[in-house]
Amino acid sequence: MLIIHYQLSIEMKLTILGCYAATPRTITNPTAQVLEIKNHMFLIDCGEGTQVQLRKHKIKFSKINHIFISHLHGDHFYGLVGLISTFMLLNRENDLHVYGPKGIKEIILLQLRASGSFTGYNLYFHELTSEESEIVFEDEKVVVKTIPLKHRIYANGYLFQEKNIKRKLNLEAVEKYNIDTCYYQKLIYGGDFKLDDESIIPNHELTFDPEPEKSYAFCSDTVYNEAMIPDIQDIDVLYHETTFLDSESHLAEKTMHSTAIQAAKIAKLANVKTLIVGHYSTRYGSIEPFKSEAETIFNNVILGDDGKTIEL
Amino acid sequence: MLIIHYQLSIEMKLTILGCYAATPRTITNPTAQVLEIKNHMFLIDCGEGTQVQLRKHKIKFSKINHIFISHLHGDHFYGLVGLISTFMLLNRENDLHVYGPKGIKEIILLQLRASGSFTGYNLYFHELTSEESEIVFEDEKVVVKTIPLKHRIYANGYLFQEKNIKRKLNLEAVEKYNIDTCYYQKLIYGGDFKLDDESIIPNHELTFDPEPEKSYAFCSDTVYNEAMIPDIQDIDVLYHETTFLDSESHLAEKTMHSTAIQAAKIAKLANVKTLIVGHYSTRYGSIEPFKSEAETIFNNVILGDDGKTIEL
Repeated sequence: MLIIHYQLSIEMKLTILGCYAATPRTITNPTAQVLEIKNHMFLIDCGEGTQVQLRKHKIKFSKINHIFISHLHGDHFYGLVGLISTFMLLNRENDLHVYGPKGIKEIILLQLRASGSFTGYNLYFHELTSEESEIVFEDEKVVVKTIPLKHRIYANGYLFQEKNIKRKLNLEAVEKYNIDTCYYQKLIYGGDFKLDDESIIPNHELTFDPEPEKSYAFCSDTVYNEAMIPDIQDIDVLYHETTFLDSESHLAEKTMHSTAIQAAKIAKLANVKTLIVGHYSTRYGSIEPFKSEAETIFNNVILGDDGKTIEL
Repeated sequence: MLIIHYQLSIEMKLTILGCYAATPRTITNPTAQVLEIKNHMFLIDCGEGTQVQLRKHKIKFSKINHIFISHLHGDHFYGLVGLISTFMLLNRENDLHVYGPKGIKEIILLQLRASGSFTGYNLYFHELTSEESEIVFEDEKVVVKTIPLKHRIYANGYLFQEKNIKRKLNLEAVEKYNIDTCYYQKLIYGGDFKLDDESIIPNHELTFDPEPEKSYAFCSDTVYNEAMIPDIQDIDVLYHETTFLDSESHLAEKTMHSTAIQAAKIAKLANVKTLIVGHYSTRYGSIEPFKSEAETIFNNVILGDDGKTIEL
């Protein structure tokens, strides 16, 4: 049972709070996602109304310590200043880190100053300007890198990768040496085992290599751009914007967005395992065709939708 | 029938889109109201999510040409930049006028610039700094004046007054002279009537004085402040914030808000006809006590609530 717990703990969970383009409506929400990964709760983009979506999905505000903003179009960040203000009203104490394009700090601070407000918590802005992928966050469990996107304004996707250092127990071996469960944790983290006769059993005889690291990439907004492929090669799950269907591919090109088929091509070329589609133009009555069009190119497609939770 | 139509046309209608303090929640909305008056549709304050509330209540975005912002606390204006952006996406052509405290222009334009956006319509900001009541809008039908409020930051309420120039027909008199209905419009606007023998019947013999002008005052956010009374003396309807109940009057004083009883005192001292209460702290489970506490001081109290429409 203990071992099963270790394996569960490496799962990722994505909650899509909103995945529609342009304006918020009564039935759809602009972009925002919550990624739970290795006990982190990362907020990705923050369109208007995101704080209400967080409440609706019972996500604890206090667990969000890192917010990643892709670009400064309103449907991706107009909810940020309100969320930061609400954190103040809730007497937040934890540090908050905001990652986003240069300019985001001035926009937020100007509004906080105008309201005579000061955060009781530390608010750090990590402003991005690089045109190359770069690491923006890293701890012992997770690394987050930017994925440069091509859009009408400066934009980045984000790649979230687990750093899995936990080895898998070789149950047969630990039973053979009659090793007590209290030593398992040490073995999982790479330790050797000393027998009563002082002889050493090296770790690699008692464990297997760690499960492969899980990885999730968020890419929105962007035109079809094969230059991003090296950044997302072989990852587990790719969320790639699909603002338009193929019949509107001319609009995709004009507005620097992608079609469902283009997103599927990127997924296929990058050899990802699963593609999530989203950021739908509100012109469409049904979103089902985004899935069916993408599936003409790529097999494993999940239709993103507001409120959908995906265990990765 | 024609005459009844004229009388109907001078009615005002208030739609409360949101009237709760602080943070937007799944069940309550921050401050925003739409006042329909003399074919104008004025938006008063614009908390986060206001554009969704407008859609929910089927209010035509294109009819809003004037937005009045009371002050720069987030729950009163964080929805403005999104609404302005949505107007762009909807290919708005009409001019838009925004009235609000100095600083509002920089906040909005900084965000539009960051998104590489330009409005296809003319966007005018009327920034306010005066500590005295002043006229901010006037045409042949309506006048709008500021009501200086006392709050933690610079804040104004707004007084909306009809300018009623339409006289009421004296039906007995027009029938006596056998005046054709096609002349009624001229009489209503003050014209005299010439008989076939060239003699003149002066207007005052054919009409009565106009109905009194209707007036509505929006006062939020403010501490109890008798200095506002001359600005709202004898008006028809006063919306006065009531963030707290009497049991939290110490908090009202500390945060520069008002209690229900204080709002009722202002209504009574100013001799207004009707008081609407609102801007409730989200700490209260029920809002009914705001009405009952106000009614201990003042008779005619309407309990404001999200989605409530009030014909004035």
